[in-house]
Parts: sequence; structure tokens; C-alpha cells
Amino acid sequence: MEPKQTTPVSQLGEFGLIEHLTKNFQHVNASTLKGIGDDAAVLDSEGKKTVVSTDLLIEGIHFDLMYTPLKHLGYKSVVVNLSDIYSMNAEPKQITVSIAISSRFTVEALDELYAGIELACKNYKVDLVGGDTTSSLSGLIISVTAIGVANAEDLVYRNGAKEGDLVCVTGDLGAAYLGLQILEREKRIYLEHPEVQPELENSDYLIGKQLKPEARKEVLKFFKDMNLKPTSMMDLSDGLSSDILHICKQSGVGCELFEAQIPVSEDAYHMALKFNLDPITCALNGGEDYELLFTIEPEDETKIADEDTFSIIGIITKKETGCVLVTRSNNRHVLKAQGWNHFE
Amino acid sequence: MEPKQTTPVSQLGEFGLIEHLTKNFQHVNASTLKGIGDDAAVLDSEGKKTVVSTDLLIEGIHFDLMYTPLKHLGYKSVVVNLSDIYSMNAEPKQITVSIAISSRFTVEALDELYAGIELACKNYKVDLVGGDTTSSLSGLIISVTAIGVANAEDLVYRNGAKEGDLVCVTGDLGAAYLGLQILEREKRIYLEHPEVQPELENSDYLIGKQLKPEARKEVLKFFKDMNLKPTSMMDLSDGLSSDILHICKQSGVGCELFEAQIPVSEDAYHMALKFNLDPITCALNGGEDYELLFTIEPEDETKIADEDTFSIIGIITKKETGCVLVTRSNNRHVLKAQGWNHFE
Repeated sequence: MEPKQTTPVSQLGEFGLIEHLTKNFQHVNASTLKGIGDDAAVLDSEGKKTVVSTDLLIEGIHFDLMYTPLKHLGYKSVVVNLSDIYSMNAEPKQITVSIAISSRFTVEALDELYAGIELACKNYKVDLVGGDTTSSLSGLIISVTAIGVANAEDLVYRNGAKEGDLVCVTGDLGAAYLGLQILEREKRIYLEHPEVQPELENSDYLIGKQLKPEARKEVLKFFKDMNLKPTSMMDLSDGLSSDILHICKQSGVGCELFEAQIPVSEDAYHMALKFNLDPITCALNGGEDYELLFTIEPEDETKIADEDTFSIIGIITKKETGCVLVTRSNNRHVLKAQGWNHFE
Repeated sequence: MEPKQTTPVSQLGEFGLIEHLTKNFQHVNASTLKGIGDDAAVLDSEGKKTVVSTDLLIEGIHFDLMYTPLKHLGYKSVVVNLSDIYSMNAEPKQITVSIAISSRFTVEALDELYAGIELACKNYKVDLVGGDTTSSLSGLIISVTAIGVANAEDLVYRNGAKEGDLVCVTGDLGAAYLGLQILEREKRIYLEHPEVQPELENSDYLIGKQLKPEARKEVLKFFKDMNLKPTSMMDLSDGLSSDILHICKQSGVGCELFEAQIPVSEDAYHMALKFNLDPITCALNGGEDYELLFTIEPEDETKIADEDTFSIIGIITKKETGCVLVTRSNNRHVLKAQGWNHFE
């Protein structure tokens, strides 16, 4: 076997590195007038509104390179930003990606990262148009900004939910959190007993949701085809409990979520029990599912009723009744933001 | 004296912190339809082209908090991005700011940083419309994205310089680099002899250029008023040598720069000699001046001739003659990119 090639980043220098990493990226959007290589990128909103979202991802805080392949990390870094654009009911068109790396990263490692970024660009038809590449004193830092467009009348904010609206989610919840639990468990076992083989069987779905989530691009097309405009929408990144509270706060309403209607996959359900966790707690507080949380007017219920993708999980109420979870046994619990707090 | 208040960031949590830091920011641009608080910001390009630039700043690489006041750092982080937008001959309108902080940063420290960001927003009339706030394992990380607009016909790229064009710069060069040398010297002295008072007298201008640079907003207005469109333009961040090579490479041309015409302030000149440095080398390779480097057609020379702001420092030549510096003694030196390489 040939020894794996390792090229120190210093061999290319900053501009050489940028050229090397981005040379395969092709622009696919007519709105991308100028990409990498000048002081700034130039975009044409073509008469539409421009939508901008940004995320900062830090090694050791947002990802662990011990179990995160760099290609997956590149893919996920892009997708989580695109998810924010979709959740405005807008179409992502361009991204900028800035990275800071410590000296332990080789050009080949960055190639892996950018292969994931490239794949995400291809799958979601967005153009990489800029960024910054620099060094860090400790680990990998990734900053992604996504830019999209929408007709003004199509934009969906967090503040439009009204009493009587139905609360809906796409897909199922809690899987990404349980995927993370598996990876963390295997890491602990590996650190204590490096000779033990990892036990990842039957957890492809859960680990996949954690390491390589997808954004709900196709749902926007469905909304358009069905002439359905949600009254409010956001993506589930911090966890259902925390995120529905944002919608309720900004809309000045309350809500009732019904435990029995919250979608949890069979895989997630069984894995939760294996970890002695309550599956619904994982679905409520897990985070990182990148599913869409949205509200619709009750008369639009028939438009989504036949689609497996959607679950109606609750109803918007008056502000005064607060935000509650109604359990299977008809108990009422006040919903709390128990999502991930970076600062605790 | 009252003890200075210190509030741990964990007391506010992520969303509380964002609200706290951004509550004083007012939007001044009609094109800012929606700012902080949703999944993404919404902007209206009003029929113009959108221009986007982004920078990632890392503690220990791009700034040293030992001699950089946080307010200055916030100001500079914004200004260096706006400078990229101006150098496209575009007008900045919005910024996003993401930060990652280690546990040693208090809310009060971040208030200082955001006071600087706010001042830059005010001085340059841009709106803060989004960002991300998270924790880091080591030090402060700042990622800024600036968004601007321009009429398509006004945009100036790096690739438009033609043989015979005049090479021009604004202001003077090398000052920011010498400001940095003073700060680094005083840091070394302080670390060895904490009792010695810093010797910063007569270096306000140099230190100011390093710690609190300004972007050349007024030059764009001048270009417009004079009906002058540069054939190429960029801002001087890496150093004149490195930056003129970008213009020549992208334009497919060569250049002659004349040592005698490169503007160096009296302060910078004397400080360079004090450090046993060649003033012209500081001007060529120093970087971080954030002055504009641009080329104009020779018939436009009269439009800038009466303005102290501008210096004509060279001429664009055929590609084949390369990029050279013509010294006072008429020697020719090939220009090399000796700007700052983060990866060396």
C-alpha cells in the first residue's frame, strides 16, 4: 500500500490553499455574478428579497473529530445553514465558508472537509462564493454564511402563528440526539478499551441523522405545489421544546403539544430505552434534527393529511394558557427550553 | 470606587446574551427588512447587485488582547470587512457578527466588544442583522460578514487594469505595521519589566492606524462626484507588494511602482528608522493599512491631481515586463508577495 500523502498547509500558503480547495467548485446559479477571488462576491437577487443566515462551528464544542469524518463535517456545516434559509420558505443560492485550522491539519484533511462542502453544494444547488482561510491556535473552526432569495410574499417568519393554527413537524424527532449518544458511548469505550470493536450495528439511521443530516429542501417545493403557506416556521436545531417557545414568544401565543402525536422513529424509540432515556424527552430536548417546525391554518390540514412526511403535533392557543405538553395520560406539563445551552 | 461588575455569560444563556448584546442596535437602512431574531435576516437589494465579504478573526493570530482594547477590536472587525465592500466600489448596508468565547469572558467584556461594533455600524451606517453566539475552548473568535449593494455598472473588480493605467493609493502606507511594532515592543518590555511605564508618546497616529483603522467610505463618494470609475481596485490588507500582484495577476498585466512616489507619513518614516527598518519595506510589506489600491485610465489623472488623499505610485505595463519596483537610484527589483502568511 502506498503511504498516504500528507502535505503541510504551509507548502501552499494562504492563497495557494484557497485556490487548491476551491478549484473544483462550479457555479450553478445565474444569480452568482462573481465568486471567490475578489474582495467580495457579487450576487444578483433578481428582484427578490435576499435572506442571510450564519453559523460558527467550533471543534470540541459543536463537533468531535474523533468520531466525525471530515467529509461529513463539511457536508453538515453547509446543510445546517441551508436549513435556516429553507425555514424562511426561501431558496438558498450561495454560501461563504471560512475556516481556521491548527498546524495538525494537512492539505489532505482539508480536501476531505471540502469534498463534503462540495457535495452539499451539489445536492442543494448552491454556489460557494467566498470565505476566509486562516490559522488557529487550537483545532478547527468553521464559519458558514448562507444566502438565499424569496419573493416577499412567500417569506415565512417565526411571528405569524395565530390561535387555532395547527403545529406541524416534518420527519421524526430525537434521532440525531440518540445518534450522538451512541457515538459518545463508543468513544468512551474506545478510550478505555481501544481493542474493543465499536458496536454500531442497526444504528445507521440514528448515526446518519447526527453526522450527515439533510435539510428539508423538498418540503418547500411541496408547499409551493400545494399553494400552502405556513403561518410561521423554523428549523429544529435546539430541540422542539426550546424552538416552539421561540415561535410562541415571537407570535404572542401559547400552544398545546400532544405527546401521543410527536413522531419518534422505531430506531430512536428502542435506542432511547436502551440508554434508559424517555423517548419523548429525547424528541423534545434532543436538538439537531433539522426538521421543520411550522404552523398552518386549520383549513389547510387537508393539504398535508395524506403525506407521511408531516405530523400534526399540537395547536396554537391564547398566550394566557401558556405553552404546554399534554401527555398520553392527559397531564399537562409546562414546556421549558431545555435545549443545549453552550454557556452552562 | 465601586467594584467593577462582572456577570458570567452563563447567567444570561445564549438567547439572553444575544438579546442583551444587540438590544441597542437600530436599523438605519430601508433595505433591512428583518434583522436578528429569526432563522435568517431578510434584505432588499432594491434592484441592485448584492456584494458579500467575510472575515474570520482569531485571538492570538489576528489580535492580542493584551494591547487591543475590546471596543477597538469590535470596531476594527467590522471596518476591515466594510473596507472589502468599498473596494468593490459598493456601499455596505448590513453585517452579521458571530462570536465564540471562552469562559474567561464576562458579559461586561462582550459589552465593550459590542460597543465598538455599534460605533462602527453608526459611523458607516450599516445594520447588524444576524450572527451566532457560542463558546470556544480557547479565546475569542470573531466572524464578520458584510453585505453591500452597487449598481452593476459601478462595480470595480481586480481584473480590469490595462497597460498604461496609473496605479494609485489613498493615504499613506506602513503606519499600521509600525503601530503594531510599537505595541509588540511595549508588550515585551511589560512582560519583562512590569514596573516600566509604556513609551507610547508621539505614536498616536501609528497605533491608531493599527488598533482602529477606518475604511475609505469618503473616497467612493468622491469617485461618484467626479464621475471617476477605477479600472481595478482592492483594499490594502496584506501589503502593497502582495496586493498589487493580485491585481496584475487577475488583470493579466505587469506594473512599475516608483519608490519615490510611495506615500509614507513622517511618523512612520521616523519610527521605521528607530526600529532599524527600511520605511519603504514597511510600506510595501506591512499590511493592514486598509487604504485603497486602484488603477485609473491616464486621462482621469486630472480628476485626482488636486487631492492630497491620492498618490500616483506607478503605471500598469505589459504582462511580459513583470511587476517591478523602481528605486530612487533607478534600480529595478521584482516585487514579491511578502505579506503576512498565516501558515508559516
